[in-house]
Amino acid sequence: MPQIEICYSPELLHLHSLENKNVVVADILRATSCMVTGLACGVNSFKLFSDLEECKEMKNNGYLIAAEREGKKVEGFDFGNSPFSYMTEEVAGRDIAFTTTNGTQAVQKSSSGKVVIGSFLNLKAVTEFLESSENDVVVVCAGWKGRFSLEDTLFGGALVELLSHHSTNDDAALAARHLYSLAKGNLFQFLSNSSHFHRLEKLNIEKDIEFCLTLDQYSNLPLYKNETIVNS
Amino acid sequence: MPQIEICYSPELLHLHSLENKNVVVADILRATSCMVTGLACGVNSFKLFSDLEECKEMKNNGYLIAAEREGKKVEGFDFGNSPFSYMTEEVAGRDIAFTTTNGTQAVQKSSSGKVVIGSFLNLKAVTEFLESSENDVVVVCAGWKGRFSLEDTLFGGALVELLSHHSTNDDAALAARHLYSLAKGNLFQFLSNSSHFHRLEKLNIEKDIEFCLTLDQYSNLPLYKNETIVNS
Repeated sequence: MPQIEICYSPELLHLHSLENKNVVVADILRATSCMVTGLACGVNSFKLFSDLEECKEMKNNGYLIAAEREGKKVEGFDFGNSPFSYMTEEVAGRDIAFTTTNGTQAVQKSSSGKVVIGSFLNLKAVTEFLESSENDVVVVCAGWKGRFSLEDTLFGGALVELLSHHSTNDDAALAARHLYSLAKGNLFQFLSNSSHFHRLEKLNIEKDIEFCLTLDQYSNLPLYKNETIVNS
Repeated sequence: MPQIEICYSPELLHLHSLENKNVVVADILRATSCMVTGLACGVNSFKLFSDLEECKEMKNNGYLIAAEREGKKVEGFDFGNSPFSYMTEEVAGRDIAFTTTNGTQAVQKSSSGKVVIGSFLNLKAVTEFLESSENDVVVVCAGWKGRFSLEDTLFGGALVELLSHHSTNDDAALAARHLYSLAKGNLFQFLSNSSHFHRLEKLNIEKDIEFCLTLDQYSNLPLYKNETIVNS
């Protein structure tokens, strides 16, 4: 029976072996939600960068460029980290160079596994993919600057609950499942005390949060290969 | 209003500032439970070591020596990591040199704060101490080889629930409080699926686990100073 475990922070990734595993990276608020949205709405690809300047230079190669730091769009870039930026005609068919505080770097650090981009928006698609495989699963929570984050953990807990053919003896996975069982009736309400909620609330993006907590809005399955994310 | 936050693993300690804070270290199964038990039952002090050989050499200085690795007592040492070893006449008035897989090292890594040894056994004493101070609180969970552990997290959640004068905007503290609210009716039952429970179950120490989950068995408050733990 394949196993599922959860890594609560990219800073703990060295404790997990990712080889030959399906690795689901989640940065619910908002990087992976943006990637899923964009690719569902016609974006051709997301190319990931950790460095702002390298990302910016991609403008010269025909890319749209997107960057978020401290929850905000960085000046001089086309877009920030709002999923609503990635569902317009402007982005359809385009390649996007993307850098964020946590999510894009979590994806890059997970590249020794088969990396799937997860969010509540494509929860069912991710679940079906994982169930179609015999590989063990590691959910990598992007967190906030290395720290535990509740919304990414709840997403991990949803997967643990939904994956009926996987088992776990990982305390992080057990805890996440318990937390999801408490939260699933109203994710928005449950998260209303969380640190990231407050961080984003100040930025006036309640609409973003509500959208990112919508289940199964899309059915695409973005994969990470060669520093780029495309639909499978 | 003082803040409380929880560090789920010693590997995440660099993300927390401990200076001028009360730092509660918890390795519920079983290192900090042993320390609390021993000092409540007449042990004079615990001196902590990360290295097995250095710990062993303390035998020549009149110490009793205790070591646990992989959940088991190490051959050639007087005691392992069972709280029942630390409540006998043999240990009363003695100094003990102590090394364990997780707990003793978590204490050593936390030494830039004012370190308090926490366990369910002295939960009320720890709570009262924290409430008597205006300092922020960081709970350091020893975990298992760097990974998240449920029992240490539940102890942190108990503190978050009990500390009515502290607030938090730390997701790890919020999650721990939720988990404790689910578990507190029957900690033993809640933990029966946890990884460490299974690890210890194989070693036949169910009695140890039950004891370590007993609330307020003792009222002492062990502190860590100069590499040594003594009652306050």
